Amino acid sequence: MKWTLAFLVGLLTGLIATLINLAIENIAGYKLLAVFQFIENERYLTGLAYFAGANLILTGFASVLCVCFAPTAAGPGIPEIKAYLNGIDTPDMFGVSTLIVKIFGSIGAVAAGLDLGKEGPLVHIGSCIASLLGQGGPDNYRVKWRWLRYFNNDRDLRDIITCGASSGVCAAFRAPVGGVLFSLEEVATWWRSALLWRTFFSTAVVVVVLRGFIELCNSGKCGLFGRGGLIMFDVSNVTVTYQAMDIIPVIIIGILGGVLGSIYNYLLHKVLRVYNLINQKGRMPKLLLSLTVSIFTSVCLYCLPFLARCQPCDPSTTEPCPTNGRSGNFKQFNCAKGYYNDLATLLLTTNDDAVRNIFSSNTPKEFQPVSLLIFFAVYCVLGLFTFGIAVPSGLFLPMILMGSAYGRLLGVIMGSYTNIDQGLYAVLGAASLMAGSMRMTVSLCVIFLELTNNLLLLPITMIVLLIAKTVGDSFNPSVYDIILHLKGLPFLDANPEPWMRNLTVGELANAKSPLVTLSGVEKVSRIVDVLKNTTHNGFPVVDEEVVPPVGQATGATELHGLILRAHLVQALKKKWFLKEKRRTEEWEVREKFTWVELAEREGKIEEVAVTMDEMEMYVDLHPLTNTTPYTVVESISLAKALVLFRQVGLRHLLIVPKYEAAGVSPVVGMLTRQDLRAYNILSAFPHLVRSDCREKQN
Amino acid sequence: MKWTLAFLVGLLTGLIATLINLAIENIAGYKLLAVFQFIENERYLTGLAYFAGANLILTGFASVLCVCFAPTAAGPGIPEIKAYLNGIDTPDMFGVSTLIVKIFGSIGAVAAGLDLGKEGPLVHIGSCIASLLGQGGPDNYRVKWRWLRYFNNDRDLRDIITCGASSGVCAAFRAPVGGVLFSLEEVATWWRSALLWRTFFSTAVVVVVLRGFIELCNSGKCGLFGRGGLIMFDVSNVTVTYQAMDIIPVIIIGILGGVLGSIYNYLLHKVLRVYNLINQKGRMPKLLLSLTVSIFTSVCLYCLPFLARCQPCDPSTTEPCPTNGRSGNFKQFNCAKGYYNDLATLLLTTNDDAVRNIFSSNTPKEFQPVSLLIFFAVYCVLGLFTFGIAVPSGLFLPMILMGSAYGRLLGVIMGSYTNIDQGLYAVLGAASLMAGSMRMTVSLCVIFLELTNNLLLLPITMIVLLIAKTVGDSFNPSVYDIILHLKGLPFLDANPEPWMRNLTVGELANAKSPLVTLSGVEKVSRIVDVLKNTTHNGFPVVDEEVVPPVGQATGATELHGLILRAHLVQALKKKWFLKEKRRTEEWEVREKFTWVELAEREGKIEEVAVTMDEMEMYVDLHPLTNTTPYTVVESISLAKALVLFRQVGLRHLLIVPKYEAAGVSPVVGMLTRQDLRAYNILSAFPHLVRSDCREKQN
Repeated sequence: MKWTLAFLVGLLTGLIATLINLAIENIAGYKLLAVFQFIENERYLTGLAYFAGANLILTGFASVLCVCFAPTAAGPGIPEIKAYLNGIDTPDMFGVSTLIVKIFGSIGAVAAGLDLGKEGPLVHIGSCIASLLGQGGPDNYRVKWRWLRYFNNDRDLRDIITCGASSGVCAAFRAPVGGVLFSLEEVATWWRSALLWRTFFSTAVVVVVLRGFIELCNSGKCGLFGRGGLIMFDVSNVTVTYQAMDIIPVIIIGILGGVLGSIYNYLLHKVLRVYNLINQKGRMPKLLLSLTVSIFTSVCLYCLPFLARCQPCDPSTTEPCPTNGRSGNFKQFNCAKGYYNDLATLLLTTNDDAVRNIFSSNTPKEFQPVSLLIFFAVYCVLGLFTFGIAVPSGLFLPMILMGSAYGRLLGVIMGSYTNIDQGLYAVLGAASLMAGSMRMTVSLCVIFLELTNNLLLLPITMIVLLIAKTVGDSFNPSVYDIILHLKGLPFLDANPEPWMRNLTVGELANAKSPLVTLSGVEKVSRIVDVLKNTTHNGFPVVDEEVVPPVGQATGATELHGLILRAHLVQALKKKWFLKEKRRTEEWEVREKFTWVELAEREGKIEEVAVTMDEMEMYVDLHPLTNTTPYTVVESISLAKALVLFRQVGLRHLLIVPKYEAAGVSPVVGMLTRQDLRAYNILSAFPHLVRSDCREKQN
Repeated sequence: MKWTLAFLVGLLTGLIATLINLAIENIAGYKLLAVFQFIENERYLTGLAYFAGANLILTGFASVLCVCFAPTAAGPGIPEIKAYLNGIDTPDMFGVSTLIVKIFGSIGAVAAGLDLGKEGPLVHIGSCIASLLGQGGPDNYRVKWRWLRYFNNDRDLRDIITCGASSGVCAAFRAPVGGVLFSLEEVATWWRSALLWRTFFSTAVVVVVLRGFIELCNSGKCGLFGRGGLIMFDVSNVTVTYQAMDIIPVIIIGILGGVLGSIYNYLLHKVLRVYNLINQKGRMPKLLLSLTVSIFTSVCLYCLPFLARCQPCDPSTTEPCPTNGRSGNFKQFNCAKGYYNDLATLLLTTNDDAVRNIFSSNTPKEFQPVSLLIFFAVYCVLGLFTFGIAVPSGLFLPMILMGSAYGRLLGVIMGSYTNIDQGLYAVLGAASLMAGSMRMTVSLCVIFLELTNNLLLLPITMIVLLIAKTVGDSFNPSVYDIILHLKGLPFLDANPEPWMRNLTVGELANAKSPLVTLSGVEKVSRIVDVLKNTTHNGFPVVDEEVVPPVGQATGATELHGLILRAHLVQALKKKWFLKEKRRTEEWEVREKFTWVELAEREGKIEEVAVTMDEMEMYVDLHPLTNTTPYTVVESISLAKALVLFRQVGLRHLLIVPKYEAAGVSPVVGMLTRQDLRAYNILSAFPHLVRSDCREKQN
């Protein structure tokens, strides 16, 4: 069952990824071919108008979709998936409309030549597919398949969404192992060995589907799609030889990656805050922002190559030179026959081809330093200003472009002092910037291995990644954490803060508003009252005056368990009322409620109508209560409670007293995710901030 | 600090691995060269005597070391590491003597041509190094470095041992990413993102060290070691092309791997039980067993090639043919000039070279089916009977040999019906058997990728691994689980059994012997009594007749926390006694105990002498008590308690009552690892077995 789902997720992700690639390659390819036609006939201005116009239409298409139908489809979606797997549900994140807009929006945005990738969106698409399959259909359209409904529990849904995210990465980079590791290192919060295996299965299906289509399309049946093999940026044709001295440029690349990555994170944070202000103003400003960025991008990509000087073709090169085709390494552009424009090779092409060209090995004299510098500058600016606009956008490709530029530039500068090929310098540069900004290590390493198919490069890639991450971490958090913070998602970190060891959960519970408990058999009016006047999602159920089976005590109170708001609402909706105060039998409950109803998470108290007569009746909460909640004793430290909360994946954690006596409540408090956020605690206990600072100074 | 340690672990593991390789290659190489000399002169019997004698001496050396100095050094050590990381300490597992015996024992055993690998032992060596560094020196020799002592807590030690295990795998296969994943998938129980990164750093150091030495030794400075590059079994020279039809043999290999792997597990279980009986009889039988296996191995390896018919050399091959060198693909052995003996190529060589030869690609006619069949049969027998003898032995290489044999055999049988090279069939066979027996997926996939450097093989490797693991899992548990079970280690599984949901911890606590609690200020005589008459390692501390700060109750009892046996012993040793029953001040404790003393885990009650006068005095346990133990309410299900126990990594879990009243004890029970083992619970609740079976039938 779970395996069938994992298979379907892989299959559908693979199919949709192929579709997206097919559409992008064809749209972008034919667009470029037409532009080159104009340039060949020296109708430069018409070419610009055509290029900018086509890009504007494509951007507009993507942006209108995003703005009008699914605002959640904008951006990469990875931070929200990360938050979801941590236990935070963002509304409408995995719906059908989001999926459809994400697919067509990505096609539009990437084909429009904007500085963004389809990688992040593919991860989101994979997760959407997984979520829809796992829930048995879209939530809001009620086309639920009953045979899948038993899947609708949090853990299974999280698992299948992890599979979806892995499949997405796998489809984006054609990197099955990298996809699994990406989910593990960056996205997932909880992880089990069984999940590792199922994720791996999904990505295996994706890679088989992708390979099948590439094989099928290889002979030109799919238009411009499918030329080339399974490996996206193959650099295996170069022999990697390096001496001890080559370690110096490698270290430099690592440090550069860390510094530039953290600067990028810092600036992106600023830009996104400004963009947020613009985007809040309504649909029109959002749309205009996208279109402005599109025009700016088109002008940069088209006009800047004119600044470059034409280079004569090297007759010894095996590749065709010059070319006017869609891809190819030596673009003729505005040059005479036998000459090529190196900046056009990098700018006036699809993003994928740009990466391929800058990674190209055994072409040491192809790019002029000044061209690489312009390329780097352009993509720095575009990378910062494109990410936040209202289209589906991934961060991977912009970073690869930026990073490869300074990597290759360093290679050119090193010249004959180094044994490493310039193409490999570009690869290392790309890896370093990604590590410096996204702060991943193992998964990036494998993704780059699978992207470039050069195992001998692995040791230096590892060094670069480790240095870049270390340097970056000393400045600011990773780009995903920054976006999570900007979106205000209450993400629970793996490690408690040091000052959390000095605060007990009892102290924290005392600082909160008083706990609301319900009796085992409670009056309807009180339930309605509590539901209307509080926002809690769970309430402890306490029985008074019970006789415990052991001990001579009478008049004891008993912690019966925890009841969810959704179940209280269900009980009210179903009029599960009793005239007298009595406990019910199990069969009564079974008759009244189906498990499907109890699995429902929606339902608002406002939708429930209760008459005045009913208000005086009772509800037996016992059968609806979760009698086995996780608890902590009030004397436990906050740090330990946080570890429990996150490791076991809780929503509510009950606090029980350490004292045992008559008159003491059997539950003294309750902790939720919001209570455990460092920010919320520090606002209640400001002195902890100071002690924290003092600790850091020491 | 932690990074320095991770660096040192990587560095030392890399150095020692190089040393071991160097020694093995030279000893085994010169031994083989001498044997070939005898054979060239047709002095076959002298050759056999020399071969068997040399092997016997080497095996004897390894076995004497193991039997006399460190019995824990026998076997691979991976199951014990896995158990340690799950929370089970095996005595003497990570000591200095174990490390030294493991190093020299491995050299002896592998050089003796036994059917075992140095891979498992290298993992253990890495872990030993990590443990010794992490503890600041060997435990029993008291050469502790004070600057490292603060590391001596369980979590940090576990982390660094994980680094060590990864470094070991990396050093064994020269697979840095594979090493990290192996630790993650197979060895570790708890895992954090930060640990992933540190592990990765260790393996990066290992790979840099290995590469440095290989570079250094490439020119022949290290005798026979160091020829060849970083990739152990390179098959990147063959282009992988396959059609849809090739999926059939791939599926067959996967199924074969699963079936054979589980049969191997089954038979190994039987053999190990017999061996256990022999080994229990004393040192001499152990030693004799090893020597018998050695002689049997030597005779098989030397004599069986005479059964094979000599093959004429193919003049079109680029490799030298025939050879009499240490390595090389076409061994002349007993054949005339221009002819080679294909079975000698596989058998009369080092294990590494045998793998290289059977993986060799673009040599479709090299091996006769009958030779492959003999090879397979020999290694099946040797693989089963070699593993349990008293020498350091790894499972990886025997499985690779066995698996590659039937893989290549299938390739030969397929003949021209397939597009996949026979060498790749051998690779797939090896992968399938490992997956079928060890049940790993992602890490095996990466290890094979890094071993063979052929990325295009990845999709089919994934399919093979998934099928083999699925098939194998339907028969029996993985080989490591079988060994864990045989050794009787109480390993806690990730998933609770289904029937655990039907039992509460309160019921389980009632079935146990009554709980022993201590008062906050306790009489010495009672402490001595409790320590002598129980074997528990932790005791709840309960204060009677306290006045809680809230509530009008008086005469309440308070759960103060949990005290460890080691701390009680320390208190007795230090004579931390009070004349009157009073609570102490914090400065008194600080004066009396240093944190180093409190970190001590040893100390036995038998070593403590208490006078009769002292027996009547009191000890204030409050300052020595852990006041923040994890707790569960008695009504929680066993399944949930187990999840908490394992996820948070506990040793003791206190059970608190759900009733709140005077006269109820504030702690009703305590759970330990042994209590949570399925086997122990089922013996107390036999009816659960039946309900479990019924559930499985449905």
